[in-house]
Amino acid sequence: MTKIPHRLYLTEDQLPKQWYNLRADMKELPDPMLSPADFKPVREEDLYPIFCKELAHQEMDNETRYVDIPEEIQDFYKMYRPSPLIRAYNLEKALKTPAKIYYKFEGNNTSGSHKLNSAIAQAYYARKQGLTSLTTETGAGQWGTALAEACSYYGIPLTVYMVKCSYEQKPFRKAIIQTFDGEIIPSPSNTTEAGRAILAKDPNTTGSLGCAISEAVEKAVTTEGCRYVLGSVLNQVLLHQSVIGLESKTAMEMLDEYPDIVIGCAGGGSNLGGLIAPFMQDKLTGKADPRIVAVEPASCPSLTRGRYAYDFCDTGKVTPLARMYTLGCGFIPSANHAGGLRYHGMSPILSKLYHDGYMEAVSVEQTKVFEAAVFFAKQETILPAPESAHAIRAAMDEAIKCRENGEAKTILFGLTGTGYFDMNAYSAYLNGSMRDYVPTDEELEKAFQALPKIPGIQ
Amino acid sequence: MTKIPHRLYLTEDQLPKQWYNLRADMKELPDPMLSPADFKPVREEDLYPIFCKELAHQEMDNETRYVDIPEEIQDFYKMYRPSPLIRAYNLEKALKTPAKIYYKFEGNNTSGSHKLNSAIAQAYYARKQGLTSLTTETGAGQWGTALAEACSYYGIPLTVYMVKCSYEQKPFRKAIIQTFDGEIIPSPSNTTEAGRAILAKDPNTTGSLGCAISEAVEKAVTTEGCRYVLGSVLNQVLLHQSVIGLESKTAMEMLDEYPDIVIGCAGGGSNLGGLIAPFMQDKLTGKADPRIVAVEPASCPSLTRGRYAYDFCDTGKVTPLARMYTLGCGFIPSANHAGGLRYHGMSPILSKLYHDGYMEAVSVEQTKVFEAAVFFAKQETILPAPESAHAIRAAMDEAIKCRENGEAKTILFGLTGTGYFDMNAYSAYLNGSMRDYVPTDEELEKAFQALPKIPGIQ
Repeated sequence: MTKIPHRLYLTEDQLPKQWYNLRADMKELPDPMLSPADFKPVREEDLYPIFCKELAHQEMDNETRYVDIPEEIQDFYKMYRPSPLIRAYNLEKALKTPAKIYYKFEGNNTSGSHKLNSAIAQAYYARKQGLTSLTTETGAGQWGTALAEACSYYGIPLTVYMVKCSYEQKPFRKAIIQTFDGEIIPSPSNTTEAGRAILAKDPNTTGSLGCAISEAVEKAVTTEGCRYVLGSVLNQVLLHQSVIGLESKTAMEMLDEYPDIVIGCAGGGSNLGGLIAPFMQDKLTGKADPRIVAVEPASCPSLTRGRYAYDFCDTGKVTPLARMYTLGCGFIPSANHAGGLRYHGMSPILSKLYHDGYMEAVSVEQTKVFEAAVFFAKQETILPAPESAHAIRAAMDEAIKCRENGEAKTILFGLTGTGYFDMNAYSAYLNGSMRDYVPTDEELEKAFQALPKIPGIQ
Repeated sequence: MTKIPHRLYLTEDQLPKQWYNLRADMKELPDPMLSPADFKPVREEDLYPIFCKELAHQEMDNETRYVDIPEEIQDFYKMYRPSPLIRAYNLEKALKTPAKIYYKFEGNNTSGSHKLNSAIAQAYYARKQGLTSLTTETGAGQWGTALAEACSYYGIPLTVYMVKCSYEQKPFRKAIIQTFDGEIIPSPSNTTEAGRAILAKDPNTTGSLGCAISEAVEKAVTTEGCRYVLGSVLNQVLLHQSVIGLESKTAMEMLDEYPDIVIGCAGGGSNLGGLIAPFMQDKLTGKADPRIVAVEPASCPSLTRGRYAYDFCDTGKVTPLARMYTLGCGFIPSANHAGGLRYHGMSPILSKLYHDGYMEAVSVEQTKVFEAAVFFAKQETILPAPESAHAIRAAMDEAIKCRENGEAKTILFGLTGTGYFDMNAYSAYLNGSMRDYVPTDEELEKAFQALPKIPGIQ
């Protein structure tokens, strides 16, 4: 048998030419989005003031199984894809596990993460429609960087609302977004109604993705020729991110491998939804039955402790409502360093799959996550992003279970990005000043009280 | 004809199994190193107190053309190699040049640069000899990070002396080196005689690689079981770095290409010497005649304005003397942000080749370098390290010349690393506060005065 290489790169010819739309194979679809004005199901055209038309279409299209990737986007992908599928030989050895551990590493591009996969698609469609500017929000800064790169490539001016605590923890993110001509505003800010309202309520708030989304959406709908783009949660984002899973599956097939367990970190669901897409397809169509595991921070546990309910996607309640696992749109997570995972909700597609039993979820505490991150970095020489390290933690725990049970399972996890802009968090972990934070039941109960009351629905 | 892919990765089977020793093909060898005590040629065993034995041997071995890469190092290489050879389609298009531009990108590993290629080799030989600790210096921090990774992998304690201005400009380098268990000390420091002497002379010095080397060497020779390792300048480093060039040449052969011009940034010469090795071999053996271009900062122009003379490799004059292009070991360059290029001398191998007319050199100013860096980042979506951007500047200038002359030359340059830890420098460029600095003839003349007087030689 051929020895499995450390890193497998597909050739350009093997790169996906179509994205895969998981909704086409779901037994039951996610519940429809509702308008914030009258709680009626949202139609495609209702989204046109917020998203560009093609993306609004992708958002609502539950039918088309495979969507052609425009050639221009395929060409852009070739600048940084394929990403490698890596066999974690050293990690396996260090853990003394019989498990085979693979990871798909998306950090080898300047955005530092998988976010570029959807950013370039969204910028492409915006330019095609002739839009003159875009807005977005960013948590960890990876999405903001990715979108700034994509917008700079197409010459589209971009305003980024960055969650305030990330903005403060990651000063250099500002510089890199500015290198790509992006304007960056810490959120909540005084530049929007939504921001001013949130600040009036709590002037010392550290911000959240929910707040930043409100501000970015408001700016988009009040600016001529401007639209809003989002790096996670949405169906369109999961569609674009399916390239991660499609590449992974092709690579594993070349190695004659199939994962018993697929693990991804979950904030809004962009990476997890993309990584698992073709494996979930196998599960939905009865071809295979891998375990699918979402890993979230104990400080922001939407799947493991949230409610499956209709909620706003933002804190300011300007967006449509989605039925998803949520902690309540008013929930402001602690200033957990994994900024990309500080979101109150979860992709409606993933929420539905979790609700219907196709997926598991675990939550992990921050210090345990950084313990895994440092251990991993020393073995595999890649310094992971804190977000990605949630998946590492869970993968290591599964591999340790394999050692204890003598099982040689095949584990695949998504290593979404690198931690170069997270050194303050690494320092806090190394010098012992990092603290874990887990919301109490009372805190969550209070947040749930604020879930919207919708006549006849909830 | 097959379309040339954006990124070409060799397979594991195609990775070099031997390093290539350029000295074996040089018509004339570099002059021998001299002892600082009596100016007599240094013998291999004279180096044993400083370097581990195998590395001392590699340093002195001018005969062996191909050196086997130990299997353990080959396995480590497979964790992050091959690095891709990238066709810069977008850059070509943006420059409207008929030139074909290729670059070998070494930034896809956590050290952020090519430095890991030699770091892992040096740590391997140190462990093999049973050494109990290592010391080194670092400029930009890339070498320090790479060596910390390598030492952490082999469990060898490491002390890193980091050039003070880099230490201050790059706070997060400290955190990443500490993540890999490295101890880091800003240089010059009070921990060594050499450091104290330099501080006594100039308490406000911003430091230099020369100072940091003195301190690291002193610490090594005064500590039991400890040796010193260096990330550039030395023959052994060029040997290890030849993997860059060997991979590049194999990849270009697969594309049926051969470079007309090979371009690399040059501080101590580690990247340049590695990248050009097999192409220089073709030149030395008459098989081909590519132009070979070294690019250095105008603030530290050792090749373009230095003297070809015997000089100390460090500021404290504790190391052997090498005949090389030098600005004088007392030369302290301005706090140029390209910390990795702030070295007074140059690899003796490269110095000799330049002296004998096998190589060209150009110097470029910092603001022009960053202009190229930002332009490149927007086209190619890779944020380059300031050091690497020197090569980008020269490659762009050559490509523009091709446009003007209507010549479709094939250009290969080395993109040694990423700029994630250089965001202060990018910010300074973007906000207009970056200044160029070029030493005056008088300043250089003064520095040359301090070149050592060696009876019968110079």
